[in-house]
Amino acid sequence: MKILVINPNTTASMTKKIATAARAVARPDTEIVAANSQNGPSSIQGFLDVATCIPGLLEEVALHPDVDAIIIACFDDTGVDAVRTLVSVPVLGIGEAAYHAASMIATKFSVITTLSRSVPGLENNLMRYGLVQKCARVRATDIPVLKLEEGDPATLFKIRSEIRETIEQDNAEAIVLGCAGMANLMAQLSKEFGLPVIDGVAAGITFAEALVNNNLSTSKIGAYSVG
Amino acid sequence: MKILVINPNTTASMTKKIATAARAVARPDTEIVAANSQNGPSSIQGFLDVATCIPGLLEEVALHPDVDAIIIACFDDTGVDAVRTLVSVPVLGIGEAAYHAASMIATKFSVITTLSRSVPGLENNLMRYGLVQKCARVRATDIPVLKLEEGDPATLFKIRSEIRETIEQDNAEAIVLGCAGMANLMAQLSKEFGLPVIDGVAAGITFAEALVNNNLSTSKIGAYSVG
Amino acid sequence: MKILVINPNTTASMTKKIATAARAVARPDTEIVAANSQNGPSSIQGFLDVATCIPGLLEEVALHPDVDAIIIACFDDTGVDAVRTLVSVPVLGIGEAAYHAASMIATKFSVITTLSRSVPGLENNLMRYGLVQKCARVRATDIPVLKLEEGDPATLFKIRSEIRETIEQDNAEAIVLGCAGMANLMAQLSKEFGLPVIDGVAAGITFAEALVNNNLSTSKIGAYSVG
Amino acid sequence: MKILVINPNTTASMTKKIATAARAVARPDTEIVAANSQNGPSSIQGFLDVATCIPGLLEEVALHPDVDAIIIACFDDTGVDAVRTLVSVPVLGIGEAAYHAASMIATKFSVITTLSRSVPGLENNLMRYGLVQKCARVRATDIPVLKLEEGDPATLFKIRSEIRETIEQDNAEAIVLGCAGMANLMAQLSKEFGLPVIDGVAAGITFAEALVNNNLSTSKIGAYSVG
Amino acid sequence: MKILVINPNTTASMTKKIATAARAVARPDTEIVAANSQNGPSSIQGFLDVATCIPGLLEEVALHPDVDAIIIACFDDTGVDAVRTLVSVPVLGIGEAAYHAASMIATKFSVITTLSRSVPGLENNLMRYGLVQKCARVRATDIPVLKLEEGDPATLFKIRSEIRETIEQDNAEAIVLGCAGMANLMAQLSKEFGLPVIDGVAAGITFAEALVNNNLSTSKIGAYSVG
Amino acid sequence: MKILVINPNTTASMTKKIATAARAVARPDTEIVAANSQNGPSSIQGFLDVATCIPGLLEEVALHPDVDAIIIACFDDTGVDAVRTLVSVPVLGIGEAAYHAASMIATKFSVITTLSRSVPGLENNLMRYGLVQKCARVRATDIPVLKLEEGDPATLFKIRSEIRETIEQDNAEAIVLGCAGMANLMAQLSKEFGLPVIDGVAAGITFAEALVNNNLSTSKIGAYSVG
Repeated sequence: MKILVINPNTTASMTKKIATAARAVARPDTEIVAANSQNGPSSIQGFLDVATCIPGLLEEVALHPDVDAIIIACFDDTGVDAVRTLVSVPVLGIGEAAYHAASMIATKFSVITTLSRSVPGLENNLMRYGLVQKCARVRATDIPVLKLEEGDPATLFKIRSEIRETIEQDNAEAIVLGCAGMANLMAQLSKEFGLPVIDGVAAGITFAEALVNNNLSTSKIGAYSVG
Repeated sequence: MKILVINPNTTASMTKKIATAARAVARPDTEIVAANSQNGPSSIQGFLDVATCIPGLLEEVALHPDVDAIIIACFDDTGVDAVRTLVSVPVLGIGEAAYHAASMIATKFSVITTLSRSVPGLENNLMRYGLVQKCARVRATDIPVLKLEEGDPATLFKIRSEIRETIEQDNAEAIVLGCAGMANLMAQLSKEFGLPVIDGVAAGITFAEALVNNNLSTSKIGAYSVG
Repeated sequence: MKILVINPNTTASMTKKIATAARAVARPDTEIVAANSQNGPSSIQGFLDVATCIPGLLEEVALHPDVDAIIIACFDDTGVDAVRTLVSVPVLGIGEAAYHAASMIATKFSVITTLSRSVPGLENNLMRYGLVQKCARVRATDIPVLKLEEGDPATLFKIRSEIRETIEQDNAEAIVLGCAGMANLMAQLSKEFGLPVIDGVAAGITFAEALVNNNLSTSKIGAYSVG
Repeated sequence: MKILVINPNTTASMTKKIATAARAVARPDTEIVAANSQNGPSSIQGFLDVATCIPGLLEEVALHPDVDAIIIACFDDTGVDAVRTLVSVPVLGIGEAAYHAASMIATKFSVITTLSRSVPGLENNLMRYGLVQKCARVRATDIPVLKLEEGDPATLFKIRSEIRETIEQDNAEAIVLGCAGMANLMAQLSKEFGLPVIDGVAAGITFAEALVNNNLSTSKIGAYSVG
Repeated sequence: MKILVINPNTTASMTKKIATAARAVARPDTEIVAANSQNGPSSIQGFLDVATCIPGLLEEVALHPDVDAIIIACFDDTGVDAVRTLVSVPVLGIGEAAYHAASMIATKFSVITTLSRSVPGLENNLMRYGLVQKCARVRATDIPVLKLEEGDPATLFKIRSEIRETIEQDNAEAIVLGCAGMANLMAQLSKEFGLPVIDGVAAGITFAEALVNNNLSTSKIGAYSVG
Repeated sequence: MKILVINPNTTASMTKKIATAARAVARPDTEIVAANSQNGPSSIQGFLDVATCIPGLLEEVALHPDVDAIIIACFDDTGVDAVRTLVSVPVLGIGEAAYHAASMIATKFSVITTLSRSVPGLENNLMRYGLVQKCARVRATDIPVLKLEEGDPATLFKIRSEIRETIEQDNAEAIVLGCAGMANLMAQLSKEFGLPVIDGVAAGITFAEALVNNNLSTSKIGAYSVG
């Protein structure tokens, strides 16, 4: 099976990290096609970026017509509804995938994301998915998305201290990493803190495999119908 | 004061109808600037149109920098969050405006919209605004948006029969017209059925005047902040 | 148009402050009639005052039969449902008006009110309106309502320090002033703290103008019907 | 123990029926004091009656200072919060009591009440108590409250046919009689339809006995505090 | 009337404490039959104990066929639905009973329970009953259930300090003791802290008496039906 | 990887059907171990069966200590929390798995289950998972679980007609088959009705594979911790 994992910002280093995370969990017979938008914002931080990245995302999707599933690798799940309407294969956002995974292994989880201004959009998504009641808190580290690409130790330090606070204050039983740019930290942090740490890219790839193996695709009656 | 009312589809006849509805309620000293996107879908029906109309909408907004408030005249409230981030004046979607107006004059309202595939998006919005509990039901007439432009008597007949069912079955105390293309029907239907019939364009214009007169604008800390 | 703004307590100095706030935002052609109950509690603090102020409020409403809209200038929105049943013009409580205004310009707001014992009543209202999910927190300053009339600097100091805490702790993007007696502080605090500060009197007047200009009034089928 | 059961309307025949229902379930050592307001509406139908009955209710409460608990025998639970603030003994509304009883013996109940215009107020109460999710539906028979006093067979016929519809359509497992004027029908209808039929007067008396025997009274910190 | 109060763990000292609390509030003509499971866990702490105590609980219930009501004296309300299906008399869990009692006398309550791992189960119950919105917080003392049997002063000290924090931080107006093993502390703590402190055993017994006196039993259509 | 799929009733023919459905979607390198309880009810219909099947289920789980994930193949998700506490591998109920799958491919789904008395338990689960807002309706066919084993054409006819009503009345975009005994119908009904039809066994197996490949297991801090 072939899965398109698409980074809706234009930062190639992030796409590379996403591809690595995707391939690390994909089945041997799953081909991962990693791509990013050619036009649009270099990172998606807040409602304006969420909107302006859409054309580039849809163009990129159109370039890959022969895939079995699509993962939108932006934690805001931007464009998921539009892409579901456009194509007939399963489509998952990485925020959505991570929340569903967390709900299957913990009674309560917290999200650790980048900027404060992204928090309300994530809370909207959680409410819409119904999973807001499983989420103890969406926490911002105030690390800009692209800062994650620099490998600065201070960045990891901030994420770690936020996880520590989460465990102490939120009664969260699992941590969701709230940005595709954190995909590489999952294994390390999980081990260090002794609780599940969930990366949406990995969750998305494996759930897409699951849906395809179930022969399930987006419903084409109702919200995602066309014509 | 100058209010930009922007139709995010490219159908000029609809923009004209919207402008008329806006001017009918605006204060004498309010200047209504009506515009529509130059690029994008000719009507907004479902999640794909909601996404693809965004670039044209943002371009059109950028052409009118000197306004005191902006109304997005699409009942899906598409792009409202992005425009709020882009500008510093108050921004209202017509769906949002209509729901707030209905909540001020009735304990329960129903929405009568166009196609079935638009219903889930409207329900998402209602949930997000918190006003879903005031909404008895979102009903589809299965009239395509552009059909409303043709003035076909069968169209009005369908809307009327849906209102009749709403009154009989939903215990709704007010009706919200769920499409900018129905803006011209408000007065007539309200009189005919003896209950408030709410048009989002009119509600939006007058609420925008209210916010401006309150000296209130979109908060620029948090979700709608930039940089 | 003529709008009755009615203070349901008997404290004339508060009515005067309310009238000033109302006139500051009203359109030139809007006549503001400010009145207060002749009988009943001198301030409304808690459920008992909310109930005992009703007869005086209804008597005062009956003295002004020729108005186009009515604002109940008590942040508990006491008597709003009863007055809506009694008259046929639009009726708004100032709590309700402030919450709707806040919801139009921010994703999350906090309320700063007087005594702790008023908080549960406000939370009940927010839940009923559906807007509780937009409210980060209702905070009590433990300043009695009538203390606000004395112009004591310590009072303003307390309100300010509560706003500061709100910004730091609640992630609120806007502040709602939770008492008609704070109507005079809106402009000053908004400027000082750099975020929207909303007064329900001002919001109520301008939304009433909006509803009247929309030709919308309280629905008379269902909850607010008579006979 | 002495329990005051107070009918907040002025119709003595209804008070008599309430007293009978109360005494039928009270313990031998419980003295039932039944009273009604001397001033106010003769029946409570809709938000205006709910408000205007308050002064008469509070006056009547004040005439009975030496009771161990108070039942407000109006299904709208009007004045419950005010009376809780006024006195220091437990206070229960009959709507509230009935909903709690129903929640203890069924996963889902329906309410059968009088006029349609009372439905939104009951739904507000259910939402506030949190028990709305246990309520399948609040159904109006469109029988005016005082019509229940006439013993017209057509009245009972209507209630019966509404119960039948409830069982067929709502999946309700219990029926709540939504008016103090139906207190005499509980036993008969329960037997006839083979499911629990709950009268709030009976539920209220026995729950008040329970609270008194638990030595529990209304909390006097927070919402119901004074001074 | 005869009420079976059944402790679904095998610790006889706890059953004795429960019996004492039950008899302290029961009417003179109510016979309390206290029993505990003969097989199963010695305390119920977390989801595994909640499940494994069921067979012993059902066996014990079957040994007492001639009772008028049954109280399940475990704060997790384990087995309540099963026992309701098995018998035809009213059945109440002590968690459920305590939450309903608290809702009748306060606008907001907090729960003070034993181990952290029991908190999510209690929160699930509160959500299911609809009473989660009345609950400010479920707090764990991290005192194991059986530690409560030892009468160690440090245990009471911990409970006291948790109550103090609750009053300061949660705005709770009443405290619910979240374990049958705390049944003996109700009177003392209520007096000491000046707010209602609720024990589910006492609440359960008196509510069971109330339901029996109302002639109300579990509905046998729907969820609790058999065959 | 080895996945234990365990049928918590004692009907071997149903276990066989479940095994077939599981193997149909499992990866070539996944070994499916299908088992059923040796003691307990022959079908799980209502709250009593849900409780009494637990000991047999836990015994069976204990017989298979070396598996990588466990699927509880009862649509009530009975025992899932207990098994999660008992083991350290991922555990999924088939109801839960089906609801998550449906939420990933449709904005609204309906459930078609067996007896009416199972509906409230399923609704409780949906509420607890947060996915109740995605569920249009849980519909009972009133087909007993074991009747599904007989291959009676009337059974399939009833399921079909319920699906037809769902599509016409509920606006559901996907159908969830609400019983492990319907696992064999997924492909056929999906094709026939042109919308996704979801079987929880298949969804559960593939999601378990996904979690294992993510290296994610049940959190052992909080609700599912031991000792």
